[in-house]
Amino acid sequence: MRISLIGSGNVATHLGTAFKNAGHRLVQVYSRNIDNAVLLAYHIDAEPIDNLSAVNFETDMFVIAVNDDAIAYVAQQLAPYNKLMVHTSGATDIKVLLALTLDAGVFYPLQTLSKNKEVASAMPICVEGSNEAITLELEQLARSISNHVFCVNSAQRRILHLAAVFACNFPNYLYTIAQRLLAQHDMAFELLCPLILETAQKVQGRLPNEVQTGPAARNDENTMAAHLQMLGNEPQLQELYRLLSQGIIKMDNAGQGHK
Amino acid sequence: MRISLIGSGNVATHLGTAFKNAGHRLVQVYSRNIDNAVLLAYHIDAEPIDNLSAVNFETDMFVIAVNDDAIAYVAQQLAPYNKLMVHTSGATDIKVLLALTLDAGVFYPLQTLSKNKEVASAMPICVEGSNEAITLELEQLARSISNHVFCVNSAQRRILHLAAVFACNFPNYLYTIAQRLLAQHDMAFELLCPLILETAQKVQGRLPNEVQTGPAARNDENTMAAHLQMLGNEPQLQELYRLLSQGIIKMDNAGQGHK
Repeated sequence: MRISLIGSGNVATHLGTAFKNAGHRLVQVYSRNIDNAVLLAYHIDAEPIDNLSAVNFETDMFVIAVNDDAIAYVAQQLAPYNKLMVHTSGATDIKVLLALTLDAGVFYPLQTLSKNKEVASAMPICVEGSNEAITLELEQLARSISNHVFCVNSAQRRILHLAAVFACNFPNYLYTIAQRLLAQHDMAFELLCPLILETAQKVQGRLPNEVQTGPAARNDENTMAAHLQMLGNEPQLQELYRLLSQGIIKMDNAGQGHK
Repeated sequence: MRISLIGSGNVATHLGTAFKNAGHRLVQVYSRNIDNAVLLAYHIDAEPIDNLSAVNFETDMFVIAVNDDAIAYVAQQLAPYNKLMVHTSGATDIKVLLALTLDAGVFYPLQTLSKNKEVASAMPICVEGSNEAITLELEQLARSISNHVFCVNSAQRRILHLAAVFACNFPNYLYTIAQRLLAQHDMAFELLCPLILETAQKVQGRLPNEVQTGPAARNDENTMAAHLQMLGNEPQLQELYRLLSQGIIKMDNAGQGHK
């Protein structure tokens, strides 16, 4: 396929590279900042542009990988070209594009992307098209770069995006709290790294409620009271500890967990 | 070394197996439930007992791997044998043993152990002895079964145990919330598994505050407001979302995070 990338951030970089490696032709890379466009374009043999009026219409689709807030504006500029337009946002409804064109879709890579890391072919990609033909087209495109392709509608994708915050962004913040607690007592974060990895690996084959452990899972009130006391000078961490523990205890009472 | 195991749960099973594989001699396995003692003892060539009065004094150390609440009682029963006694608890001070004997220690495997999973040699073990000779002895024993051995005193170990709750038990609960949100909308937890693993892998080489992503890290108020609305019928999840997001935003304002 001939693909034009609108954006040059993490998502654009990963998708552009993956598309290139899969043999697709990258036509142009747009960024407001020409230097960013130049760098990405160089690596994927595309033409860099920093002005949407310079868009080449010899392309099959626009992949809009910009900040959520900018999607509607960018799509409006691109609508006159009458090409398939897809955005890559978990939190944005396909309707934003459907207001402008009938040929619209979503191509959402469900991953915590960092620019300097290779994209894994295990990265799930969720696609949605404005009609069956487009859904199929996007599914095929996704399969050319990933082994995990799912058709997910806009209502589901919103939930998925929220669930990903709980499964990814929030755990990372809890790692930060742990790291800070250790640092305050002259211990290296390294100590907890194997545990963190093991915790994530455990749920690759089993549901998380089946492998919950810890003081709250055992309803070990002495340990929980001691922990709350240790957090005495950090009321917000205490509140967080209490809320998370209560959730675990409730889960257990609901007969969904054990140990 | 000649080692006697007091307990037959996850910790006893993993340590017993690792000790056996490293060439140590397991003398006895004690459990209140003789069947549990028999099963573990069978696998590590030890004698099963279900009564502490049947303890064989031809041993070098007792490894007390029972529930935290039972450590003091069990240690009291074993004190007359005048052997080195160590417990395996993250949350328990060495003082509990020091009240009964001068030869005491702690041998704390920092891992989320499941009975039916092989112990990894990457599992950190934290040791503490009542004197330097014992610390050294425990360090050597730990090195015979793990590449990651740390000397951690009781004050530090309490913090480490608390930090592990934040780094392991609480993230697993957040996975459960994510799984429930997906299930409510007919999506499989499988969708999030690569993301969860990637999130844990990211912090193996970098500090978590350096790789924080998500709506709160970007201070994306629209998305956070939308997420809170989606959680409208679950006030406790709303509160949790709010608290965790506030923590991430604060972290960012403190100049410790980015993106």
